[in-house]
This record gives sequence, C-alpha cells and structure tokens, in this order.
Amino acid sequence: MGKGRVEAFSDGVLAIIITIMVLEMKVPHGTSINELKSLIPIFISYILSFIYIGIYWNNHHHMMHSIEHVNGKVLWANMHLLFWLSLIPFATGWMGENHFATLPVAVYGFVLLMCAVAYHILARLLAHLHGKDSIIATAIGKDKKGKASVIIYTIAVCLCFIHPSIGIALYTIVAAIWFIPDKRIEKKLEEEEK
Amino acid sequence: MGKGRVEAFSDGVLAIIITIMVLEMKVPHGTSINELKSLIPIFISYILSFIYIGIYWNNHHHMMHSIEHVNGKVLWANMHLLFWLSLIPFATGWMGENHFATLPVAVYGFVLLMCAVAYHILARLLAHLHGKDSIIATAIGKDKKGKASVIIYTIAVCLCFIHPSIGIALYTIVAAIWFIPDKRIEKKLEEEEK
Amino acid sequence: MGKGRVEAFSDGVLAIIITIMVLEMKVPHGTSINELKSLIPIFISYILSFIYIGIYWNNHHHMMHSIEHVNGKVLWANMHLLFWLSLIPFATGWMGENHFATLPVAVYGFVLLMCAVAYHILARLLAHLHGKDSIIATAIGKDKKGKASVIIYTIAVCLCFIHPSIGIALYTIVAAIWFIPDKRIEKKLEEEEK
Amino acid sequence: MGKGRVEAFSDGVLAIIITIMVLEMKVPHGTSINELKSLIPIFISYILSFIYIGIYWNNHHHMMHSIEHVNGKVLWANMHLLFWLSLIPFATGWMGENHFATLPVAVYGFVLLMCAVAYHILARLLAHLHGKDSIIATAIGKDKKGKASVIIYTIAVCLCFIHPSIGIALYTIVAAIWFIPDKRIEKKLEEEEK
Repeated sequence: MGKGRVEAFSDGVLAIIITIMVLEMKVPHGTSINELKSLIPIFISYILSFIYIGIYWNNHHHMMHSIEHVNGKVLWANMHLLFWLSLIPFATGWMGENHFATLPVAVYGFVLLMCAVAYHILARLLAHLHGKDSIIATAIGKDKKGKASVIIYTIAVCLCFIHPSIGIALYTIVAAIWFIPDKRIEKKLEEEEK
Repeated sequence: MGKGRVEAFSDGVLAIIITIMVLEMKVPHGTSINELKSLIPIFISYILSFIYIGIYWNNHHHMMHSIEHVNGKVLWANMHLLFWLSLIPFATGWMGENHFATLPVAVYGFVLLMCAVAYHILARLLAHLHGKDSIIATAIGKDKKGKASVIIYTIAVCLCFIHPSIGIALYTIVAAIWFIPDKRIEKKLEEEEK
Repeated sequence: MGKGRVEAFSDGVLAIIITIMVLEMKVPHGTSINELKSLIPIFISYILSFIYIGIYWNNHHHMMHSIEHVNGKVLWANMHLLFWLSLIPFATGWMGENHFATLPVAVYGFVLLMCAVAYHILARLLAHLHGKDSIIATAIGKDKKGKASVIIYTIAVCLCFIHPSIGIALYTIVAAIWFIPDKRIEKKLEEEEK
Repeated sequence: MGKGRVEAFSDGVLAIIITIMVLEMKVPHGTSINELKSLIPIFISYILSFIYIGIYWNNHHHMMHSIEHVNGKVLWANMHLLFWLSLIPFATGWMGENHFATLPVAVYGFVLLMCAVAYHILARLLAHLHGKDSIIATAIGKDKKGKASVIIYTIAVCLCFIHPSIGIALYTIVAAIWFIPDKRIEKKLEEEEK
C-alpha cells in the first residue's frame, strides 16, 4: 500500500492544527497597547505550540521519506498520533488563557507526552514492517531519543505541581532535542545513496 | 477521468472535518480539575467521532486504491458522502454538550446511518463502473458489511428512544466491524499481484 | 508553468470553504425537537451552498483537467474566483439565520453572480492562453452557459426585492444547469483520445 | 530531500489562512442595509489581506518551482514564514473591527514586515543552497525587491503614528510591487529552457 495518501492526509491535518491554534488568539475589542499586552501569554503559548507542530511535521516528513510502504496497523498508529496532536490547540489555548497556571501546564505536558508515545509507537511499527536492516530500523535503533522524550515529559508533568515553570523548561528541552530533524535518518539515506 | 484530484479533495475535507471537531471542545475559563471533568462527555464523543472519521478515511483510501477511474456520477456520490460526514462535528458537539441525551444520540446515529448509505451508494457505483469482474466489484460483492451497517444503525436510532446507551453500544459495534480496513479489497489486490 | 499546485491550492481552499460552512450551524443548547426545528432554514441554506461549492469544484476539476499550463494572469483569475467563493459561507450563514429574508437572499445571489463572473473570466483566459483550437477553447466556445448564468443571477438578485423566493428559485435553476459537469469538455476530451 | 511535501504543507497552511480570515466577518444579526454597511471596514481589510496571501502564495509557488531540493534549515525558514503569515488573520480582524485605528494598523504593518523578512531569509537560504549560478540565485541577485519591501514596511509602521492612512498607502505600494509574480524567476526559467 502506497504512502502518498497517508502523507497527504497527515499534512492536511497538521496544516489545519497549526493554523486553527491562531483562532484561540481572539481579536481584542479595544485598540490600546494594554489590550495587546494581555495577549502576550497566549502569544507565547502559540509560539511554543507552533514550534512543536513544526517539529512533528519535520520529523514525520523525514520518517515517511525513509519508508516504502504502510499497512493497516501503521494507518491506525498514524491516526493515533494525529489524535493527540489535534488536542494541542485546546491545551495551548487553556494554558495561554490562564497565564501558565499549574493544571493547564500539566495537561499541556500530558498531551505532549501522549504525542511522544504515539510517535514512538508509529516509528516502531514502521521499523518492524520494513525489517531490521531497513533504513528506518537502523536509523531509529532503540529509539533512545523517543524513549528519553517520554521519560522527560513524565517527569515534567509531575514537577509542574511543584512549579509550572519547571514543566515549561523541561518541555522546551525536549523541543530542543528534536528541533533538528532526525540526523539518524538523513545519515542513513546519504549512505544508502553512495 | 483520473482519480487523483478526487482523493486530494476528499482527503482535504476529511482532514478538516476531523480537526474542526476539536473546536467544539471550548477552552474552559477556570483552571480547576472540575472544569476539566465537565469536558469528559465532550471528550468521549470527540474520541468516538475521531475513530469514525478515521475508519471512513481508511476505507475510502482502500476503495480508491483499488479503482482506476471515476465519472460524473461518482464525483457526486463522493460529494454526497462528504456532505453527511461534514455533519458529524455538529452531531458530535450536540451529543457531547448534552451528556448523551436521547435526541442528540439519535440524531448522531441518523447522521452515521446516512454516511453508511452514502458509502454503500459510492461503492456500488464504483463497482458498476469497473465491471463485475473488477477488483472492486468482486471485493465488495453484495456488500453485506455495508448493508448490515445500514440495518444496525436503523435499529440503533430507534432503540435510542428506549435508552440512548443502547444506541451508543450499537454504533460502537458497527465501528468495530469496519475498524480493520476492508480485507476484501486487500485480499483481491494481493491475488491480482500474483 | 505547471498546473499541479494551482489545483492543489484550489482544492484546499474549496475543501475548507465547504467544511467551515458547517460551523455556522451552531450546536443548540437544549435537546428538544424544537431546537432542531429552528435549525431547518440554516440546514437548507447549508445544503444549497454545499451543492454550489460541489458544482464549482466539479467544473473547476474538469476545466483544469483539459488544460496544459497556466500563467500569472490565470493564477490571479483563479484567486479572484476563490475570493468570491470564500464569501459563500458568510452569505449562507446570514441567509439561513434570517430565514431567507430579502436582503440576505439578494446578497447571497450577488456573491453567486460574482462567482459566475469570475469563473467566466477564468475560462476565457484559459481558452485564450491555449489558442482557439485547443480543447478548452472549442469546448467553451462562446461560453453560452457562463453568460446565461450571469444574466439569470442578475435578474434573480433584482427580483429578490419583489419576493426572495423568486431569487431562490432562479438560483436553483442555474445550479441545475451546471449540476452535470461540463459535457462540452468531456466530449472534446473523448474525441481527442480517438 | 524532495520539495514536494514542503509545497503541499505550505499550500495547506496558506489555503487555511486565506479561508479562516473570512470567519472574522461575523454574520450580522439583523437584515437591514446598515448591518451590512457596518461590515465595510472588515470587508476592506479582508480584501487587502486576501491579496497579500495571494501574492505570497504566487511568489512562493514561483520560488519553489525554480528550486530542486531543500534541507533542514530551509524547512525551518519556511515554517518561520508560515508563522508570521498565520498572524495575518488576527491582525486583519483587529484592524477591520477597529476601523483602521492607529495601533491595529501599525501591528498589521509589523506582521507584514516580519513576513517580508521571513521571505527574504527563505530566498537567501534557497539561493545559498543551490549555488550562486543557480536559477534561484541569479534570479534573486541581491534581492532588491525584498530589501525595499522591508525598508518601506519599517517606514510605514513608524508613519502610522502620524496617520494610519499613510501606513495603509505604503502597504498597498509594496503589494503593487509584488503583485506580478517574480518576473526574474520566469525569465531565468525561460532562458534555461532554450
């Protein structure tokens, strides 16, 4: 089964998720600078989530680029990933509107955690489907990056209840780890071409 | 007439439907755990509908994969399917906001019923267009699965007026039947390749 | 310049227009049958507009299928068409919410009129670009259908001020004319293949 | 790394941005001509932004057409451009709702300025990636058009605080400069083909 339409559908959903988040930034009624200032926490949470979706899109793009086919299980694993990603606009809006209060920050982290889990499952299924000598399988290996993300997110969600800023700091660290698209895949693809 | 743009358009509409549903989950104003709890029925109805749209996308993907061309009638049959699918976010929101009350659950079932009818019509038109020896025609056969869905949904909508949970249970059963993409098509495609 | 990305962008915009219209159908707060009944005019206007966007998509699909390349002017003519189409959800919502009152029905007709004008311009530009012996040019000819639509819409908008139902009736007649995708193009394409 | 999915994702995001702007044009509750008149500033700001997004799409289309591959940096530069473009619906809505008041017009200009900066960065990265003899590099050259836009926008934002109409006039001038897709690229592509 071809991968083209899975890519197209995922692109569509990710494009919509990234864009509807901006709808949470409601147009203020006045025209003073204070109205704009009150939007700052919402704007910051928007930037953070925009980067997250960007990271997922980039990495998804890379992963899909390195595979050849998909099956029914992969379709559902991908759908599962899109489900958790689709909750990011909600979590972003709640966190921004409440100025990074404890519970919204923890819920935001929980959604990110579930996205990371879903991405890990998808990567494992794709590696399994293509065999242990495939580009995807050797590139991912034991998926240390994926596992580390899951662990950091879990800790981050717990530490939110001490202070939400600890959570935000840890989420940012995971983003930094993934910001550069998966070098593992790029390296393997280049080697392959030689 | 090529099928590429029909797939692209359907993917676009399905991607938007699945994503705008999340807009029904309004960001709560407070930050207490109770605010989150009050969202639970909306969240459950969102999960249910997400799975449904996922199922339709998967099966639509499979069906389109097995055909070669489309005509004017097929374009309209596809549009008809998209119309009923586009009502799912509305029905989902109404059902979730009213904690699975009788009428919203029955309306939700009616929309699912009409989607099933529209899918059945599309499948029949495609089978007819490709001739009775085509992959799609032999795979679908008498479309027992499609007909069974229509019957179960009809019964489910009626039984909602006894208790809405019976309706929900029956809707879930139909989802389970379709959860695994159409093996009939996959089998036929594999045989063809041999 | 290739036509692929113009098709993709137009598909995307049309898919979003057709889907966001449903957002005008606000989820009612109660669960009684009367709540649902009060949505009937909005639902009818949704069906009408869904069919209109469907018609535009089908015909756009056909027209784009018959051409080979585009230029800067065509890109802007297409953008112009998308602009007027993007106003349909607004006009639909206004008309439905006000139970087909005079001014909203006339405005709805005006938007449809401008869509027809924009489509006619796009068709003429494409015909001109491909030369008078091209499939598109011979298929469209003097574009009687396009011109007739423009005239009927103009009359319809004026007659709305006698009674809006005359407007709705005339809009429906134009829809009927275009419901079947452009046979002219299909015929030409078939002849070409022989 | 192929450019196909970057185009698809950008098309998706641009298609959504251009379409959700229309959601800022809230359906009025009455049916009088005055209700419609009160929407005029929102409508004008919608037209202006529609043209802007159209210009970006056209030029993005042209630029992507002239390149061969992308890398991780380009993906992020593109994401950065989409980020600023995604703020246009918000800025448009704020400006329209407040009848082109000083601060909203200045903020609108600031968003346009950042879009221009982001586009310039993307163009430079693509030119650098393809080498100084590539179509994109020779076509863009020192990117005078891009630099001029950045300067005019900066001046325009400052002059808004004298009178917002000066800002609007200058924004319109930049739009006029870019309205016709990049002739530089078209010329180079034609020469290449000879």
